[in-house]
Amino acid sequence: MEGSQTSQDSVHPHPYVPKDLHLPGYVPCFLSQSNILSGYGSFFVILFALTWFFSGRLKKTKVDRLLIFWWAFTGLTHLILEGYFVFAPEFFKDNTGFYLAEVWKEYSKGDSRYAARDAAVVAVEGLTAVLEGPASLLAVYAIATGKSYNYILQFAVSLGQLYGTATYYITAILEGDNFSTNSFYYYAYYIGANFSWIVIPSIISIRCWRKISAAFRVQSQTRKTKVR
Amino acid sequence: MEGSQTSQDSVHPHPYVPKDLHLPGYVPCFLSQSNILSGYGSFFVILFALTWFFSGRLKKTKVDRLLIFWWAFTGLTHLILEGYFVFAPEFFKDNTGFYLAEVWKEYSKGDSRYAARDAAVVAVEGLTAVLEGPASLLAVYAIATGKSYNYILQFAVSLGQLYGTATYYITAILEGDNFSTNSFYYYAYYIGANFSWIVIPSIISIRCWRKISAAFRVQSQTRKTKVR
Repeated sequence: MEGSQTSQDSVHPHPYVPKDLHLPGYVPCFLSQSNILSGYGSFFVILFALTWFFSGRLKKTKVDRLLIFWWAFTGLTHLILEGYFVFAPEFFKDNTGFYLAEVWKEYSKGDSRYAARDAAVVAVEGLTAVLEGPASLLAVYAIATGKSYNYILQFAVSLGQLYGTATYYITAILEGDNFSTNSFYYYAYYIGANFSWIVIPSIISIRCWRKISAAFRVQSQTRKTKVR
Repeated sequence: MEGSQTSQDSVHPHPYVPKDLHLPGYVPCFLSQSNILSGYGSFFVILFALTWFFSGRLKKTKVDRLLIFWWAFTGLTHLILEGYFVFAPEFFKDNTGFYLAEVWKEYSKGDSRYAARDAAVVAVEGLTAVLEGPASLLAVYAIATGKSYNYILQFAVSLGQLYGTATYYITAILEGDNFSTNSFYYYAYYIGANFSWIVIPSIISIRCWRKISAAFRVQSQTRKTKVR
């Protein structure tokens, strides 16, 4: 009896695809989609204002100020939002309206593997939260203080983000790519919400690659000059 | 009838764990374990001799000569061995004794997720074969010709290898870590065969990180000198 239960047996049927996904104890979202998104939007705007203000006082270039914001934004997203997911396997049972649980209940409409605790998703999110989260915040510090390792650190974290996103999509395709409630959630959440984590790490990786290659050209040029 | 078949129904029962893994058409290994391992061992020795000879003529340091060997070895392993796995989902049905199929039939005793076509394993191996394979061979060229991008390239591939290995083990643990025929195969194949791809990429990553940070210290020192 227990083993053959489907979501229809629980008090609240879940909205996720595939329909036969077994999520006993599922509690629907308390917050509306617009409330959840405006929460994250407010975090984005406030963090931008704060980092822009402080990076201005450090007399950084505009590019560095934008990078400081990005690393603070992505680092806190990894640590708090994704960190919560990694260590809260039963978020879909939350009945308190806790914001972080609401986010993942909502996002699971775009990719039910989050609610289903798919091993590839948890592995990627685990590496992202535990390694890339703190490393992103270290990048804020490294750019702000002009550390010699700032480019290699930014490169490392960006590459990790790209590798994680690639693994995320490839495993979805291999498993049938049928985890979205409907095509709105497919494009808005599954594709749209991850899009920044393809474009921005790509741009940063290329920039760091060029800066690092240029530094070695300077180094070998300096040596040649000294030899003369 | 068809759907309820287990491995017991096929002509040859498979040796993998879990026992109820369904692999219709499985054909046992033709080669012995020592034949398979000595094939890979011969490849290792011949490649070492070749790369050591040619890198010696380029008057490279011993570290660079070892690195040239490593990148040739890991690149060809990624491209040929892992590339075959990625694009041969039915390797376990091979009845010709083809060496690459034999390798994966044998390795599956250490991790049956290979025969079972686990999505995380295929995703990691896909990225490794398609991206890291060619990039490793590019590293051979970059070290041999002293390109300014050689350290950042070695760092990128090493980090990809580490990320892949981490995903490989984390997904195994999340899925129950019960994919080895017995503890010999667990330690010899699943742990032992992957061990080099944890240790060597870690050493190379740290070395590249230091070289790159040092290059930026040289660069900023040069600028200060010029300003004076």
